[in-house]
Amino acid sequence: MKRPTILVLGAGYGGLSTVVNLQKSIGADEADIVLINKNDYHYESTWLHEAAAGTLSPEQVRYDIKDVINPGKVKFVKAEVQAIDIKGKVVTTNVGTHAYDYLVIALGFEGETFGITGLDKYALSIANVDAARQIREHIEYQFATWSLEDEKDDSRLTIVVGGAGFTGIEFLGELGNRVPELCKEFDVPAEKVRVICVEAAPMVLPGFDPELVDYAVRQLKAKGIEFSIGTPVVEATPEGVNIKKGEDEFEFIKAGTVVWAAGVRGNRLIEETGIENMRARVKVDKDLRAPGHSDVFIVGDCALMINEEINRPYPPTAQIAMQQGDMCANNIIALMKGNRTAEFVPDIKGSIASLGDDDAIGVAFGKKLMGKKASFMKKVVDNRSLFMIGGVGLTLKKGKFNLLK
Amino acid sequence: MKRPTILVLGAGYGGLSTVVNLQKSIGADEADIVLINKNDYHYESTWLHEAAAGTLSPEQVRYDIKDVINPGKVKFVKAEVQAIDIKGKVVTTNVGTHAYDYLVIALGFEGETFGITGLDKYALSIANVDAARQIREHIEYQFATWSLEDEKDDSRLTIVVGGAGFTGIEFLGELGNRVPELCKEFDVPAEKVRVICVEAAPMVLPGFDPELVDYAVRQLKAKGIEFSIGTPVVEATPEGVNIKKGEDEFEFIKAGTVVWAAGVRGNRLIEETGIENMRARVKVDKDLRAPGHSDVFIVGDCALMINEEINRPYPPTAQIAMQQGDMCANNIIALMKGNRTAEFVPDIKGSIASLGDDDAIGVAFGKKLMGKKASFMKKVVDNRSLFMIGGVGLTLKKGKFNLLK
Repeated sequence: MKRPTILVLGAGYGGLSTVVNLQKSIGADEADIVLINKNDYHYESTWLHEAAAGTLSPEQVRYDIKDVINPGKVKFVKAEVQAIDIKGKVVTTNVGTHAYDYLVIALGFEGETFGITGLDKYALSIANVDAARQIREHIEYQFATWSLEDEKDDSRLTIVVGGAGFTGIEFLGELGNRVPELCKEFDVPAEKVRVICVEAAPMVLPGFDPELVDYAVRQLKAKGIEFSIGTPVVEATPEGVNIKKGEDEFEFIKAGTVVWAAGVRGNRLIEETGIENMRARVKVDKDLRAPGHSDVFIVGDCALMINEEINRPYPPTAQIAMQQGDMCANNIIALMKGNRTAEFVPDIKGSIASLGDDDAIGVAFGKKLMGKKASFMKKVVDNRSLFMIGGVGLTLKKGKFNLLK
Repeated sequence: MKRPTILVLGAGYGGLSTVVNLQKSIGADEADIVLINKNDYHYESTWLHEAAAGTLSPEQVRYDIKDVINPGKVKFVKAEVQAIDIKGKVVTTNVGTHAYDYLVIALGFEGETFGITGLDKYALSIANVDAARQIREHIEYQFATWSLEDEKDDSRLTIVVGGAGFTGIEFLGELGNRVPELCKEFDVPAEKVRVICVEAAPMVLPGFDPELVDYAVRQLKAKGIEFSIGTPVVEATPEGVNIKKGEDEFEFIKAGTVVWAAGVRGNRLIEETGIENMRARVKVDKDLRAPGHSDVFIVGDCALMINEEINRPYPPTAQIAMQQGDMCANNIIALMKGNRTAEFVPDIKGSIASLGDDDAIGVAFGKKLMGKKASFMKKVVDNRSLFMIGGVGLTLKKGKFNLLK
């Protein structure tokens, strides 16, 4: 019998977790495991807002894939996936095609701009390492230019953050700490800088406990961050954003930097596979397979699962993605052995949103946390991701050890 | 008898040297010494190319003026000089006017674009801390953007340096070291980057020994820097520069960054004083006074002195500016005491051009130097400037101690 080929697309939390769990449990002669990823590195997508704000080096949020895979068991291909042919069981990349017996789609998220005019073109997005790095450079360039120019355009120092969800709030937390550094570095008076969070929904951090949300908003406001809540962005231009403040009331915010952190969707390639999806996210079966496709698993941000307790989808988190990768590996092995697959049940240990390096809010093991305790736990969680994929060595290399700041 | 007011405009090498020498020799009750400067810091203008390339922090090239002046003897005013009324003996700034009995004009250099179309608008200039910092940010932003964009515009990674004089060559030396770092930091393949030096004159580093020049060019070429010599820039556009290669032959170099390092002039305010000048530089009397103005001294880049041995002007260097400041202080004190002023004779100890942090060429105490020895001497010279103005404390704080790199 021919050895099956297991093809894993994407080296984010879900894909990499699948691969490291497969390589633990499968002998080198049992299957050909192939991992395809655009970059030769993995990045901690939950840390990207730090690289974007400039509070963490881009180098610190990523690590080499070769550092966590076993080359005797897994073949890594640096390539960009261009098409997934579910019927023909073959994946096309920019450097060749790959047939598979089992496919794991772990292609992660893309930003969603909901068709709002100009956002694609004029807003920056914390989508990956390249994009985060460019946001940091963009902001620094604006500050440097303001300092130099004779006729000062103060709007260069205005940063609009679209979205008061998890990413938006965490990014604002970092900016709250970063702006005073930027002011010092570029000789900019602090009172000239504006950071404005614009959110369409009537609330901040939906799903979080109101007490924690109040704390977060209070802390961010104390750092000078402004909030405009319940005011959708209706247009982005090269000069800023137009927001809707009432029935026929609009306000244009002139801003040198607009970062859109308000929506995610699955990878667009999924929409071309013929698999039923919603914004490129697939409502997977309980064993993580795509409905009707017994050889296709979907994990991470492209997988949609409903939390039946509240009848809402689980959020696309690293925690769930890594648990899915674990289960996905087990289920592939089960199929190879002719056994039954198991059902995936998320084990949510908590959810913590940072408010900068020194503050956070959240729930862990059923307990509400805020301030230094929450910030401590957040770093523990961040280090845990590293540990689960790469063990002690990787954790020591890339972990966060200013735990008690 | 009323105490005279000595007004010093500018806290560059010349102005600050004047002030620290005055405060050493004059009692607090003998004169009112007022120093006016646009920033509350002095910067080492001979180090700016390092900040521009990103090899030295902008913070490291400047120090607080209050760290070197004696507040009991010198009043510092942070202000921008707007007009100098030689007849009325009064200087207007953006925050008020100052009458004087003795005036020291030490306003430093400005970039000179020789009327070349577009240079003012589209080329960056290593003119001051703000400008140097913006060049660094501009280059980093280009690299970050290249990494992010889907359709790569390689010209973002092209840097044109206009001018193969002292500043141009020193800046190229830093870029030669910085580019590999940038490539690593921004995931840019080295072969995509171009650094091109464009010079109108038929030679590099005019006035330097040919053997040293050959060495410099060879070293820079080894770092991947291209030279286009005897090819004047005739136009700058938002996309790059047009250079003249022959009688009717032109070449357009598409470049994301154009830095103009090819000419300096004195401060434009001098042109409005009525004092005879050439590009805002005044051919001063031997005692450093403006011809016909017995109470106006001019030191540093705005002063023009002829080296009669070769019948050419002395170059505008920190070394000469500091010596002039010293002499200027002595001559003001002489005038206050009714004594005769002394003649200024530059004491040229040498001239060293760095080729990055680890290489240099030059002449010191009559000896030709290149490579590590020259680089060592360059750092000694850099530290000497700090020492002469601010003593041991300042040298330890801002000096260069990687002497043997």
